[in-house]
Amino acid sequence: MSVDGLSINLATVREQWNLREAVEACARMGISAVDPWRDQVQKQGVAESARILKDNGMRVTGLCRGGFFPAPDAAGRAAAIDENKRALDEAAAIGAECLVLVVGGLPAGSRDIAGARTMVSEGIDACRAHARAVGVPLGIEPLHPMYAADRACVNTLGQALDMCDQLGADVGVVIDVYHLWWDPEFEAQIARAGRGNRILAHHICDWLVPTKDLLLDRGMMGDGVIDLRRIRAAVEAAGFHGPQEVEILSTEWWKRPGEEVLATCVERFKEFCQPE
Amino acid sequence: MSVDGLSINLATVREQWNLREAVEACARMGISAVDPWRDQVQKQGVAESARILKDNGMRVTGLCRGGFFPAPDAAGRAAAIDENKRALDEAAAIGAECLVLVVGGLPAGSRDIAGARTMVSEGIDACRAHARAVGVPLGIEPLHPMYAADRACVNTLGQALDMCDQLGADVGVVIDVYHLWWDPEFEAQIARAGRGNRILAHHICDWLVPTKDLLLDRGMMGDGVIDLRRIRAAVEAAGFHGPQEVEILSTEWWKRPGEEVLATCVERFKEFCQPE
Repeated sequence: MSVDGLSINLATVREQWNLREAVEACARMGISAVDPWRDQVQKQGVAESARILKDNGMRVTGLCRGGFFPAPDAAGRAAAIDENKRALDEAAAIGAECLVLVVGGLPAGSRDIAGARTMVSEGIDACRAHARAVGVPLGIEPLHPMYAADRACVNTLGQALDMCDQLGADVGVVIDVYHLWWDPEFEAQIARAGRGNRILAHHICDWLVPTKDLLLDRGMMGDGVIDLRRIRAAVEAAGFHGPQEVEILSTEWWKRPGEEVLATCVERFKEFCQPE
Repeated sequence: MSVDGLSINLATVREQWNLREAVEACARMGISAVDPWRDQVQKQGVAESARILKDNGMRVTGLCRGGFFPAPDAAGRAAAIDENKRALDEAAAIGAECLVLVVGGLPAGSRDIAGARTMVSEGIDACRAHARAVGVPLGIEPLHPMYAADRACVNTLGQALDMCDQLGADVGVVIDVYHLWWDPEFEAQIARAGRGNRILAHHICDWLVPTKDLLLDRGMMGDGVIDLRRIRAAVEAAGFHGPQEVEILSTEWWKRPGEEVLATCVERFKEFCQPE
């Protein structure tokens, strides 16, 4: 049994399993790609995590997550850059195809979102040489505008690509449908990302109606309103054929047995996520 | 005592007062502009509401709300258009300066947001002659992207202005900072709205960190992260000098005495909302 084209972001089963358990469960299901989070890797140990991933034949579609560049003072911003370099080292150690950047929101006490965006751009720029040195591209993940204040002040694909254009190579984008599905410019910007060869990863889940929590109520594919098939077709037309990575942050799904969650991911991936 | 340049959207005190009580309380505070909701007007009676507003010398900065154009079938869409014409009649009867449109999200069961947007555009187009006849412009209010599925599939000011350009006159925009503050294009689009003379109203409140509820956790000006002063400067530079209208949907503020809410609105308006 194998499930081509599917990756599991390990946050999806973070309450059920540690990294080893999650990777082994994925392998048993025929899933051959994952994206772990840093805390999962660190708890297992970086070298041990690398071994587990390799022994189970896993492609590593990313490491979540770097970012959080804005800070009230220069020392804080420098510390964030150092932390991102360590994250790049860890990404390289586990063979991750990119470091996913949740870029950060407003510094405490600030109302200056343009200023925060400049801090993000400068922070990423300061990490580029290290990214090149370790061979791991930096992937800006635009987050939904409801996270602009506290998690990421990059909120559309167009804005992320503008930042890429300004920064040059070593930087690309992570396209997560949950954050971007609503944008009237979404498909045009996917095509633009393809022309610049900027797509590093494609994350999927669904937008539930109603959504009961800003952070932890993401839906399983098929349970919401996102046209995943259409978006995947646009992503492939733009030249990206890497795995679709399921990332579901959900108190509901975290309550269920991990095997059930993975089985549902596989089933829904086949039913709702294949372009026609 | 008078408070120039301030309007109160009556949803802000909807749990405390009916329309008459709210209008009289505003008048006592020296507030000379309000924007009622349709259910408040209907409960009081349209003619009686008009008298109350006039007797208290109120400018009426809008009527909330028309919209909700998408529907699964043609009959549903026709019914929505009829309902919007009735809302225009009510707006005219109370002397409202615009009918605020919360345009509607996806029809039940649909994943076709582009299709929903077409339904919105067609629905507004079908109301334009009636709007012109009764002398009330239609104000598209772009809503935050977190409402794209269930309340409004128009989610940026640029998108709303594209729709205005396509529809022609009789249609403008309602700029609510809560929905739009995060947009990297926001200020450029405010300037664009001014060039087309499209700004019909300017709504204010604040974005709280953290935001605990998607719908009913809007903040009082000054309690959040929105740079209200800067946005107002942009709105005035674009040629709009009408009142700033406080619209706070908040279970927290609904628990407090109406007088306290209004007094706080006045105080915060003076402290946080005046361009330098």
